[in-house]
Formats: sequence, C-alpha cells, structure tokens
Amino acid sequence: MSDSVYKVVELVGSSDKSWEEAAKNAVETAGKSLKDLRVAEIRKLDLKIENGKVVAYRAKVSLSFKYGLGG
Amino acid sequence: MSDSVYKVVELVGSSDKSWEEAAKNAVETAGKSLKDLRVAEIRKLDLKIENGKVVAYRAKVSLSFKYGLGG
Amino acid sequence: MSDSVYKVVELVGSSDKSWEEAAKNAVETAGKSLKDLRVAEIRKLDLKIENGKVVAYRAKVSLSFKYGLGG
Amino acid sequence: MSDSVYKVVELVGSSDKSWEEAAKNAVETAGKSLKDLRVAEIRKLDLKIENGKVVAYRAKVSLSFKYGLGG
Amino acid sequence: MSDSVYKVVELVGSSDKSWEEAAKNAVETAGKSLKDLRVAEIRKLDLKIENGKVVAYRAKVSLSFKYGLGG
Amino acid sequence: MSDSVYKVVELVGSSDKSWEEAAKNAVETAGKSLKDLRVAEIRKLDLKIENGKVVAYRAKVSLSFKYGLGG
Amino acid sequence: MSDSVYKVVELVGSSDKSWEEAAKNAVETAGKSLKDLRVAEIRKLDLKIENGKVVAYRAKVSLSFKYGLGG
Amino acid sequence: MSDSVYKVVELVGSSDKSWEEAAKNAVETAGKSLKDLRVAEIRKLDLKIENGKVVAYRAKVSLSFKYGLGG
Amino acid sequence: MSDSVYKVVELVGSSDKSWEEAAKNAVETAGKSLKDLRVAEIRKLDLKIENGKVVAYRAKVSLSFKYGLGG
Amino acid sequence: MSDSVYKVVELVGSSDKSWEEAAKNAVETAGKSLKDLRVAEIRKLDLKIENGKVVAYRAKVSLSFKYGLGG
Amino acid sequence: MSDSVYKVVELVGSSDKSWEEAAKNAVETAGKSLKDLRVAEIRKLDLKIENGKVVAYRAKVSLSFKYGLGG
Amino acid sequence: MSDSVYKVVELVGSSDKSWEEAAKNAVETAGKSLKDLRVAEIRKLDLKIENGKVVAYRAKVSLSFKYGLGG
Repeated sequence: MSDSVYKVVELVGSSDKSWEEAAKNAVETAGKSLKDLRVAEIRKLDLKIENGKVVAYRAKVSLSFKYGLGG
Repeated sequence: MSDSVYKVVELVGSSDKSWEEAAKNAVETAGKSLKDLRVAEIRKLDLKIENGKVVAYRAKVSLSFKYGLGG
Repeated sequence: MSDSVYKVVELVGSSDKSWEEAAKNAVETAGKSLKDLRVAEIRKLDLKIENGKVVAYRAKVSLSFKYGLGG
Repeated sequence: MSDSVYKVVELVGSSDKSWEEAAKNAVETAGKSLKDLRVAEIRKLDLKIENGKVVAYRAKVSLSFKYGLGG
Repeated sequence: MSDSVYKVVELVGSSDKSWEEAAKNAVETAGKSLKDLRVAEIRKLDLKIENGKVVAYRAKVSLSFKYGLGG
Repeated sequence: MSDSVYKVVELVGSSDKSWEEAAKNAVETAGKSLKDLRVAEIRKLDLKIENGKVVAYRAKVSLSFKYGLGG
Repeated sequence: MSDSVYKVVELVGSSDKSWEEAAKNAVETAGKSLKDLRVAEIRKLDLKIENGKVVAYRAKVSLSFKYGLGG
Repeated sequence: MSDSVYKVVELVGSSDKSWEEAAKNAVETAGKSLKDLRVAEIRKLDLKIENGKVVAYRAKVSLSFKYGLGG
Repeated sequence: MSDSVYKVVELVGSSDKSWEEAAKNAVETAGKSLKDLRVAEIRKLDLKIENGKVVAYRAKVSLSFKYGLGG
Repeated sequence: MSDSVYKVVELVGSSDKSWEEAAKNAVETAGKSLKDLRVAEIRKLDLKIENGKVVAYRAKVSLSFKYGLGG
Repeated sequence: MSDSVYKVVELVGSSDKSWEEAAKNAVETAGKSLKDLRVAEIRKLDLKIENGKVVAYRAKVSLSFKYGLGG
Repeated sequence: MSDSVYKVVELVGSSDKSWEEAAKNAVETAGKSLKDLRVAEIRKLDLKIENGKVVAYRAKVSLSFKYGLGG
C-alpha cells in the first residue's frame, strides 16, 4: 500500500499585491513538478516592510503530494 | 440572565477569488437566519488545488450568536 | 551592544476592503513614527459584522522596531 | 453503540459579578434542554469594559451531551 | 455561493475495543443524518477507567458537512 | 483610515481576594489614561504563595486601545 | 548547585464556591508537606455538573518546590 | 476539603501491537498502586523503529488520582 | 561534526484497518531508502469518509534521518 | 491597589556569542530605565545567517515591570 | 510488558552561567537517584533578574525514567 | 514570480558543548549546499543522557532557502 504515502512540504510564496497571490505563487511553482497536489494549508502570513511601507505579502503554505515524485 | 448566553459555531466558506469573499460567504449565509452576529474570528485558511492550479480559497470562521435562535 | 535591541508591539488595523489593507493601515500608521520596521507577522484575522453583513476586515500585526525610538 | 456518541458545543455566558456566575449561566441555560451534561471546560475568560470600567465577566465553556438530544 | 458553506461539529465516540472503532461510531452515527461528510479530524483521544482497568477508548472527532442539512 | 488603528498591551493585576478583582485592578488602572478600552482578554491566571498560603491572585490581561493615545 | 533544583507537579483542587477556593485547596493541601512553594500557575479550569446544575468548580494548578523534599 | 485534591502524572506505555495496548499497559501498571484512576488523556503517540521496521507503539498518558496515595 | 546532523520530514500514511498500519506504511515506505530512522512522532490522525462510512485511517508522522542520505 | 499593576513588554536582544548574552543585552538595556524587573521569559530563539555562516544569536524575551514607570 | 512503562517528570535547574549548565544541574541531580534517564526535553527557559542585572539562567526540563524506580 | 518562492526544512544539530554549537552545526552543514539561507528559527532544544550524564545538546532548527536549489 506504499502508493498511498504522501509527503508534506512547506513553501513560502511572495507577492506585492495580496496573500492570495503569494500562496498561489508557492503552489503553482511547486505544481510544475508535483502533479498530485490537492490541498494547501496556510501556516503563517507576514509582511515585508521597507522605509515604513509594505513591499510584499508573504504566505507560508503546507502542501502534500505523493511520496517518491520529487519535491 | 439567560438572555446573555451566546453559542459559538464554526463554518467554512469558499470562493474562487479571495479569502475575504470566502469568509463573507460563510458569515452572510449564516446571517440569513442568525440576526445577532457581531464578530467572526478566522480559525484557518486553506486552498483547494486541481491540476496544479488553485481553484478555491477557503476560510474557517468562528461565529457567536444568541443561544436559542437556531444555528 | 544595546543598539541591537528591538521592541515588539501588536497593532490592530481595519479596512472595509481586505485584510491586506487592514494590515497595511496598521503598519503604515506605525511607520510614520517608527523608522526601522522591517517585518510584520500576522497574529489574528477577524471580521466585524453589522445586521448580518461584514462591515470591516481586521488584522492584528506584530511589529518590531529599535528600542528607545518610541512606539 | 451509537447511544454512546456525544456532541460538543461551546457557549459564552456573562455576569456582572464573577466568571463563576458567567459559566454557571451558560451551563444552566443549556441544562434546561440538555439533560445529560456532566462536565464543562473553560475555553476563554474575558471582560467587557465601558467608560474605563468592567461591566461584565464572560466565560466561554465547552459542553458535551448525548447526540440526538438537541443543542 | 451559499451552497459551498460547511458547518464544523465535534463528536465524541466510544468503544471497548479501539480508538478506530470509537471514531467510526461517532462518524457513522452522524452519517445517518449527514450525507455529505468527507473527512474527520481527530482532536483528542482518552480512556475511561474503572477499578484500575481500561473500560472504554474514546475519540473526539471534528466533522464538516454542508450547512443547512441538520447537525 | 489611521484613526481605526488599535494597540494591544498586556498588564498583570493583583488582588488578595479574587481573579475578578485582579483583572479589574489592571483594567481600571489603565482606564485612567486610556479612554477607549472595550474588551480585555485573560491570558493567564496564577497565585502568589508565602509560607504555604495563597497571598495573592494575579491575572494577566490583554487590552486594546486607540493607537496614539498613550499606553 | 543541586540545591537550586525544583520539581514541578500538577494538582487539581475542587470547591463548590469558586475557582479561587479550588486552587487554594490544591495549594494548601500540598503546602502541608511542601515548605518551599512560591508560585502556582493555573493550567485549566472546569466545572462538574449534576442534573443540569454546577456542583463543583475545579482548578488544575502547576506548582514547583525544592527537589528532594517530597511531593 | 483536602480529600478532593488530585495529582496529575504522565506515564509512557509501550506495546508491539497497538497504541491501545501501550496506553493500557501504562494505566494498568499504575492501577496496581493507584486505586482511584478514572480517566486518562493521551498526550502523545510515537513509534520506535529498528532497521527500517516499526518495533513498538508508544503512548504518553496523563492520569489523575487522589493526592496522598502514592504515584 | 556534520555527521550528526539529522533532517526531519513529515509523511502521511493510509490504511483501511487502523492508524497503526497507516503509520507503519508511511515509516516502512520511507525505510526502504532511509536506513537511519529511529523514532517517528505522530502529528495528526484523521479519517477519510465516503457515503457516510469510514474508508481510510490516515496518520501524519514526523521522521528524522541522517542529512545527506536522501528523503 | 494600582501600585501592584505590572506591564508586560517583549524585547529582542542580539549577540554574536550566545543566546545568554542576547537575552542579557535585552534585559540590561531595558534595566537602565526600568528599575523593577524581576523575571524574563524566553519566547523565541533564532539565528541570523550570512553567506552560510551564523552571524548572530537572537532571543525574544518577555519582561514585566511596574505600570506607569515607562517602557 | 509493565517493565516498559516510563514516568515523566519536570524539573527546573538554575545556573549563573548558562542554560546548558542549568539543564545539566537538573538532569544530573535527578541522575543520582534515577539510573535510566536517556533524553530530556527543554520546556521553558527564563532569567532571574535583580537590580536590573541577570543573576540566573533557568531551564525547565522534562525527563522520563522507568516507573517504580523513585522520582 | 517563481524566483521568490522559498522552501522550509527542519534539521537537528548536535554538540557536546552548547545549543549554540548544535544549531550552528545544523545551519553550516546545510549552508554548504544551500547558498541563500538568511534566518533559522529554533523549534526545540533537548539533551542526550548516558549513565546519568549529559552527553549532547541538540537543537532542531527551521531553515528557509530558495526553492529549486536542493535541500
């Protein structure tokens, strides 16, 4: 039954517009090599600041995909 | 003093645009029958993925409303 | 080495549009007096509700800045 | 063995005197319709403030009772 | 988009054999009335003891099902 | 929209009678200078002990008030 | 420096009046044999219910005392 | 009211078959000397591995029993 | 001293019988390529449900193995 | 009883030698203006890295001091 | 299989030099009577302060040893 | 914007001297192949014990580096 084993990874995506786009960047970058992603949980949201202004929205996402297929 | 008792429920809303709209869907669906909602806390955010693409933003919200008025 | 000591504060920002704007309001209000902000972590997201409708998105952010420069 | 299934609910009670009375209000309001309550765990305590004065003590309690008997 | 709103409930199941059976009792009791259950997360495991012996295994499970269909 | 930014502070109050009075002392001491307090969450309760006897009940409370008005 | 080693224990006290008295019962029962108690942190508060009424307030307290002096 | 004071202890049991048996070993070993055990909460489950194979299931359980009766 | 560095990974195993078998599937699938596994901590247990019936028990396990040997 | 109210602040100290020195820097910088510090809890430890090398140890500490005396 | 039951205790050690020495003091004080200690997890680090200076580093450690051998 | 995606990994380092050296071993072993490490958060500290003596200090660190560059 080893085909039903999944691996969990955490990625951090970034966007200058929104946390939705930051999470999407992380997921879709991973999705190029990982074909079996189904759900991604948000672990943390933060903001990068320069000169008192918000310059990026960042989202840490937890992804699971079939073990043995890279990552 | 039983009129001041509140019940807490958790709902999960979904949207293909944003977590704001996902949370709003959950709150406003509940709001049709629950007249005394005042605040909703976000418990969890996640993403639904199909073919390596994000297809939905989901938000789990915790709502409180007067006990005895449904839910 | 006291110049490397930072203080952590928590602020809650609000917006009728999005959590991104709520967090940005908190950070940029603080940024007027605090010149050394670099990162802000999101501690909590919630919603203010009136008459069954969402009227504000609120974000609690944790900021750190050099100790001794106000706050 | 379905008769041994319990449901968990969270209620928030309020009192102008004490958290004990706040929790008791929540439990005993529920107890009117739920005959099988045995234990209630405190999940959160807070205070309502008006004009710089404490006007209410509130307690969020988690209750379990037999599934299928309302709630 | 209200059809995509889910409600989360917590149930406690019990068994004299295993936590698997305890969780299954909770889920399948709920499943009689709730047709759209898909996943159940375990929130807590405990044991009931009498005269120094384990007499029951109990599992608290968190279930989500479509809002408006009972619960 | 900077007028809607709030700051969060934590205070510890003390009383030889009850946690209610301990929390009230913290809130009402702060309330002398902070006019816009509305809610205070309890973060921790503890006891001070001398010679095997409880001599004080202490409550750590988290307060939010309008940013820029002191604290 | 072994004289400065402390041991941590958790006790649950009970009272039909208040959580303050429940915690005090736990501390002062322990205090009969443990001479060096200085602080006790509250880990959990709950309620015992019979026939829909609150019959006891219970407090779980964490105590530390010098290692080697019983407990 | 000192007769109503309970002490909490944590034990780790082990089994080569199941977590149920691991927890039962911990509880029933304690039960030989502690006559008043009523409930045991599971705090952690883990596995011991040798040569890439699972050789034991381990369960950390939290037990409470009347203070003054050993432990 | 780099030979003493370990890497932590999280895997999710699945079984239609028990959480023990689910965890074992995850560990032993990993164990085929990772020779130095010694302990695996359970991070989460859940259930997959179809048509109101439990169809799989799933366990998320955290494993550590020598860094540089794959994973 | 307002003299017994304490305020809690979080500071982050830094050192190129150890977390002990990082925490000490935070405490003793604060100690110049805050005369009543008695205990500081460590909330988080981290490392700053440049070119693959550790360049600073950082400690986030939580301090409490008498309310009304600065901070 | 009762010989494989372990008991968990928490001790707090102290040192004027480092948290390593504080934890070591706790472990080695316990180690005089407990022969089967194998691992100790750090639960909390703090600092004792007098006159604005750090006077002790303290570490709370969680130890497990064979049940029935003291502690 | 895939160039801004980071991956998070957890490593456990070990030292017979200090947790600082344990964390440094983990970071600098990883730093040989991962050029873009900037910060490492400490997730857990523990001690390895043999014959009642501390033989190693271990630190679990969480590192993030650019996705696609190994790990």
